[in-house]
Amino acid sequence: MTEREPDRERLLLGMDIGGTKTVVALARATGEILAESRLDDWASGSWKKDVQTLVEHARVLLRGAHLPQDALHALGLSVPGPLNPVTGIVINAPNLSGWTDVPLVEAFWNVFKIQVLLENDANAAALAEWRFGAGQGTHSMLYLTMSTGVGGGLILDGRLYRGASFQAGEVGHMPIVPSGRPCACGLRGCLEAYVGGAALADQIREDVARGEAAAILELAGGDPAQISAELWVEALRQGDDYARRLRHEFLGHLSQGLAILTQIFDPGAIVLGTIVRENPELFLDELRERVYEQVWPSLRNVRIEPARLGARLPAYAAVCVAALEPPDLSPSGSSST
Amino acid sequence: MTEREPDRERLLLGMDIGGTKTVVALARATGEILAESRLDDWASGSWKKDVQTLVEHARVLLRGAHLPQDALHALGLSVPGPLNPVTGIVINAPNLSGWTDVPLVEAFWNVFKIQVLLENDANAAALAEWRFGAGQGTHSMLYLTMSTGVGGGLILDGRLYRGASFQAGEVGHMPIVPSGRPCACGLRGCLEAYVGGAALADQIREDVARGEAAAILELAGGDPAQISAELWVEALRQGDDYARRLRHEFLGHLSQGLAILTQIFDPGAIVLGTIVRENPELFLDELRERVYEQVWPSLRNVRIEPARLGARLPAYAAVCVAALEPPDLSPSGSSST
Repeated sequence: MTEREPDRERLLLGMDIGGTKTVVALARATGEILAESRLDDWASGSWKKDVQTLVEHARVLLRGAHLPQDALHALGLSVPGPLNPVTGIVINAPNLSGWTDVPLVEAFWNVFKIQVLLENDANAAALAEWRFGAGQGTHSMLYLTMSTGVGGGLILDGRLYRGASFQAGEVGHMPIVPSGRPCACGLRGCLEAYVGGAALADQIREDVARGEAAAILELAGGDPAQISAELWVEALRQGDDYARRLRHEFLGHLSQGLAILTQIFDPGAIVLGTIVRENPELFLDELRERVYEQVWPSLRNVRIEPARLGARLPAYAAVCVAALEPPDLSPSGSSST
Repeated sequence: MTEREPDRERLLLGMDIGGTKTVVALARATGEILAESRLDDWASGSWKKDVQTLVEHARVLLRGAHLPQDALHALGLSVPGPLNPVTGIVINAPNLSGWTDVPLVEAFWNVFKIQVLLENDANAAALAEWRFGAGQGTHSMLYLTMSTGVGGGLILDGRLYRGASFQAGEVGHMPIVPSGRPCACGLRGCLEAYVGGAALADQIREDVARGEAAAILELAGGDPAQISAELWVEALRQGDDYARRLRHEFLGHLSQGLAILTQIFDPGAIVLGTIVRENPELFLDELRERVYEQVWPSLRNVRIEPARLGARLPAYAAVCVAALEPPDLSPSGSSST
């Protein structure tokens, strides 16, 4: 080992790209966010035009921070939907029209000529909560998005685990009820079909059609199309009976899912986004209790925590991607000779 | 980087320690087994005496191979039951009386003064099938023992994944049926309670008490205590109707478990031991088909394979433990800055 000159500051640029909202952030190598800005309803229908928009936006951010482009060390891209972090291609980004088979890493490399890393948004969020949020200090942490759908990211032994074809962490689509409720993904009985926001709204609408869930229908102004998981939570806060029964079922399915994950992973922490993060007092105590009933006593030290970053998540998520090393695809790892 | 002299040959000693059977093996660093021997019904009821027996046995093996003790580079110990690979303590080894809180690594270090590594037998078997058996060439592989109980080992991104308290991989105890069949572990509805050998025998005995499973009872010589998963397989080969119904249920539960694992891990391969390994033609085709029905089309390239090592498994398993690096417990891994 030879001594090296201390690096001059190497900044990270991150972009958390979504159909309705995109966040661009500039950060130190430590993750400290220096500047951040947000674009709403920005997508044009052409990915090439969208990349130009993002590049211009990044340049504005750099100028605002009085920094030259060559201060950048790496760019991290957090994108929803299936993608390949090795080839840098976004296969398909839901809610971004025209984004099919997009060579996104190449497109940004051509502009910035720096390392460009691509990761799906659930993995990026998991990295962010692990480094800067509720998963800090753990060696292994599982993150569940708990939003419209249920995505997941797995941090195992201090590393993002991506799977053989970069699809690992789809915990929302583990079949917990054989031949159960149809899921938006096309399978049946997925965890998401019982605890995802869109699936919960569907279930409430079915129950409304059977004459139940009157309080939620009222909150929706009598329009079933306006029913949402948020209105369920509102009815729950008002002590509505139907909403409480649905909560009991929700916690039953979610606790089974988390118990499965605990027995398989023996994780240091499971971190839960959106629905649980925004309403911890409505769910967390009973959720923990019901998970612990379904796992070995020796595994009950797993921390089950709401996510912490909230509105700061997208910026941290994208910056964490910029801080990754490129995926290591060597056939054998470091732990065996 | 400086050039180094090629190492002189560094041999590995492995011990796969069990209550009824123990295998001691000597191997090259590449894993090539040079000598192997087996002890049956060897345990004395005192762990200290048992360690002496194993040490003597290892010395006989070395002498037989005309090798001095200092040719050994590392010793790997594969042991059933809960243990701590960092402290080197076996908390409790079922079927080995007197083995409670055994400082096993220290005991062997005092004799051999070489690196001693300790791992549970399911993890060791997973490493062996990954390096030398059905998991070769994969980056991530899950191994299920499928014997009396259902143990598991997880090789992820080319490394053994142990979990926060070294209990990862307990895939046999994921709750697949909430409040389902009681499991030997004390929980209910575990995968093992539906597909483990002992649980299957229990279920057949219950059905016998209800007047079913006559063919299996006959194979057991009319003695319910003699009923076993092996006799179920025999009845299945004879085309018995009850045995075929049980097979249908067995494959239903096992395929659900493997589908859950596939959606979570996106593994390169899932490797199955004992029951499936010994009878692939009875189970494998339908098992694959039923797993594929329950996972995303993009994940159906997962290989579902019988284990390959068979009788050679214990020696390879112990040698693979000897070839491990000590567990890395640094709080953050190599993939993030």
